[in-house]
Amino acid sequence: MNIGYSLRIVGRIMRVVAALMLLPALVSAIYRDGYAVWFILSSVVILAVGLLPLMLKTADKNIYAREGFFIVAATWILISLFGALPFYLSGQIPSYLDAVFETVSGFTTTGASILTDVESLAPSMLFWRSFTHWVGGMGVLVFAFAIISLGDTRVVHILRAESPGPTYGKLVSKSKINAQILYGIYIALTVLEFLLLACGGMPVFDAMLNAFGTAGTGGFGIKNTSIGYYNSAYVDCVIGIFMMLFGVNFSVYFLLLRRRLADVFRSEELRWYLGIIAFSTITIAANIMPIYKTVSRSLRYAFFQVSSIITTTGYTTADFNGWPTYSQAVLLALMFVGGCVGSTAGGLKVMRIIIMIKTAIKEIRYSLDPRSVSSVMLDKKPLDRSVVTGVSSYIVTYSIIFFVSILLVSTGGHDPLTTITSVIACFNNIGPGLGVVGPAGNFSSLSALAKVVLTFDMLAGRLEIFPLLIWSVPSAWRK
Amino acid sequence: MNIGYSLRIVGRIMRVVAALMLLPALVSAIYRDGYAVWFILSSVVILAVGLLPLMLKTADKNIYAREGFFIVAATWILISLFGALPFYLSGQIPSYLDAVFETVSGFTTTGASILTDVESLAPSMLFWRSFTHWVGGMGVLVFAFAIISLGDTRVVHILRAESPGPTYGKLVSKSKINAQILYGIYIALTVLEFLLLACGGMPVFDAMLNAFGTAGTGGFGIKNTSIGYYNSAYVDCVIGIFMMLFGVNFSVYFLLLRRRLADVFRSEELRWYLGIIAFSTITIAANIMPIYKTVSRSLRYAFFQVSSIITTTGYTTADFNGWPTYSQAVLLALMFVGGCVGSTAGGLKVMRIIIMIKTAIKEIRYSLDPRSVSSVMLDKKPLDRSVVTGVSSYIVTYSIIFFVSILLVSTGGHDPLTTITSVIACFNNIGPGLGVVGPAGNFSSLSALAKVVLTFDMLAGRLEIFPLLIWSVPSAWRK
Repeated sequence: MNIGYSLRIVGRIMRVVAALMLLPALVSAIYRDGYAVWFILSSVVILAVGLLPLMLKTADKNIYAREGFFIVAATWILISLFGALPFYLSGQIPSYLDAVFETVSGFTTTGASILTDVESLAPSMLFWRSFTHWVGGMGVLVFAFAIISLGDTRVVHILRAESPGPTYGKLVSKSKINAQILYGIYIALTVLEFLLLACGGMPVFDAMLNAFGTAGTGGFGIKNTSIGYYNSAYVDCVIGIFMMLFGVNFSVYFLLLRRRLADVFRSEELRWYLGIIAFSTITIAANIMPIYKTVSRSLRYAFFQVSSIITTTGYTTADFNGWPTYSQAVLLALMFVGGCVGSTAGGLKVMRIIIMIKTAIKEIRYSLDPRSVSSVMLDKKPLDRSVVTGVSSYIVTYSIIFFVSILLVSTGGHDPLTTITSVIACFNNIGPGLGVVGPAGNFSSLSALAKVVLTFDMLAGRLEIFPLLIWSVPSAWRK
Repeated sequence: MNIGYSLRIVGRIMRVVAALMLLPALVSAIYRDGYAVWFILSSVVILAVGLLPLMLKTADKNIYAREGFFIVAATWILISLFGALPFYLSGQIPSYLDAVFETVSGFTTTGASILTDVESLAPSMLFWRSFTHWVGGMGVLVFAFAIISLGDTRVVHILRAESPGPTYGKLVSKSKINAQILYGIYIALTVLEFLLLACGGMPVFDAMLNAFGTAGTGGFGIKNTSIGYYNSAYVDCVIGIFMMLFGVNFSVYFLLLRRRLADVFRSEELRWYLGIIAFSTITIAANIMPIYKTVSRSLRYAFFQVSSIITTTGYTTADFNGWPTYSQAVLLALMFVGGCVGSTAGGLKVMRIIIMIKTAIKEIRYSLDPRSVSSVMLDKKPLDRSVVTGVSSYIVTYSIIFFVSILLVSTGGHDPLTTITSVIACFNNIGPGLGVVGPAGNFSSLSALAKVVLTFDMLAGRLEIFPLLIWSVPSAWRK
């Protein structure tokens, strides 16, 4: 592996992150909350770390898949450890482990919080916390490469490692120009949501931070009762719809911009995604009708929660811990489904579910009639066999990490529902689970080991596992 | 599909079942409980059903995979519906749905019960209930084919459909002679356990029924507190070890009889199986030490429960609902693992887990270094690619049925833990779950829909899904 040159690239990304950290310092100056110094100090530390690799001499400038995985994993681990500095140094989050948990939860757009009273946080801290969602949503490296420049073929391997998915969309594969187009769409949608919220009467600061959390499908609330605080059908509606939009494959917007409507409608993943949302919303609304009395209120709360959970955002307007078991079961199932490939959402992704189901149907047909050999079709095209086996082994690896995590978290002695749903919520980058970590609770009371495991799960979920496993495969370190 | 001849085979099997039903009538005569008439009446009904297909004329006597699936599915559905008759007609189980649930739970060796007070059941009913475990453990059709005779090539397709597994062992593939050898081993082990229990002071009737329940890895207790009733370290030890033995691939005993020890030790599945049991027992014992005080008591309760759950038997000596979360999490994980292929145990099976993990490792290696193409190895031999994809799609189909079942059961409004673990316990043919359906509870209070879904899950779990899906694939019905 070309470690020298890989570290130099990591260094360049860290220098971008150091610059980003000056934004909350600016917010601190505006709101005069007195924490600017900690952001500047952290920024200097990160800058120093980013300059270190310059001392390495590297003649070889080749970057392949292994190096891509390494760069992505190293970057995400470093931003987790150093991004937590302002929280910890300022004393706003007294435990460094908790600060790292909160930072990883931010960058991975999970939205699980160890804060028992988020409203007591200073404005600059709240800004940094939500801003990590916005940066992490699109990908820290996509963000960095929209700014710094590298040879295009090299960037491909790195971007693929950060945004894997079962198949590579057209957009991810063309590096810098596309990174900029994607960020253009991302920024435009974020600004649009901010304007709609601000015009609807939400304070500008709140509107900006809630838009960050929606765009990254993150879900950090800036109020103790999350979006339920605003208690407004308009706000629920705007955020609910935007969460859904950010869970759509961004190439759909690219196609829309080019007026290629036929291609949009041909997307099976989009049709399934919208179908699942419609089915879940309607059946949950019927199920919770006894609680909310009217059809419109039931639909409002059901749609918001469905949109929030399937996109793995994690905003809440109601404590679904108190909903009937059917509604909870649907939400639990949606936690695994996740959004579309090529969106900012986490989870297994709708496309993997489709490929899984189609493969299973093909196999059942085959076992009944061995002459019926056929390919798995997606969007009316046959899928490459390597994509199908890739999806299968992704799900297997996912299941193994899932079970091992539950075993490790269970040593903390929390009740089974809390134990299981905390892993589901973190590994799928959602945020709230059920029980102690439900919408009205938080992750502060979990054991230290549980927090470490869940931090790993959040990173593994965001990076789709493989980059983090490179450290454990000896052959990957060979020259 | 050759429905005519398939139905004639089903008819012959039903006539064997009609004969079996005379055994509990005999028990009733011995214990003078007055229920013999209902068993004789049920036997006559089943005999009549078994004679019906004789009216069909069939020239074509070819049997292939599709017909095998059909025969297995039809047989299991018929024995479920008719095996429930004595319970229902006698009034010992007043609801026919409950009686079917209990019967399916018996034949599939699940051991989940709707009875709130099992000790109030008549001896002949208790006998029939436990006897279904013993017949179902080895396979109703394996049992029937050990008695009736068919051409060997035809039987292969039928036995494969009832005992699928990821690969076919040497024993299953040679039809009648092997069915008899397998049953010989099965009977010998059952008798040995019966003798050990009876000599240890257990009443003969109890020893026989508990041995039936162990051999089939079924788990119907004949006391309200299951095996905990005897409160004896000796009983726990004998049953604990025999449960473990019945979870081993029976070909191991075949090899032992032929003194091929090297082949036994080469079995990776056996080593993993014993390793998982050792690891789980030791860590759970450490975890529950504060409850049971001494090392020996902790080990005794831990080993019994681990052996009971991994083999999907479901006997209990302690209410593990009250154990710490780590112990519960390990037991939950073991519920999915299940025993070895070619044993009477249910679950995913240790071999599938091994193949899954090895495939995942191979894929991770491949994604880091695309030149490292290698086969998945098992017992030092490369696995056929179709076995690997078969395992993947089995797990996918398994997951889909699992989630759909949870959604359907959740409409009953039970708490989430009960909802989820009732599906896990039935689909993996275990018996007790957690919450309401925990070791100290039962399935009686579940909704009618939940009982229907769980009945399907028990059958799907026992037959490893595919035979039951044949009804839904139109192409399978073509000539």
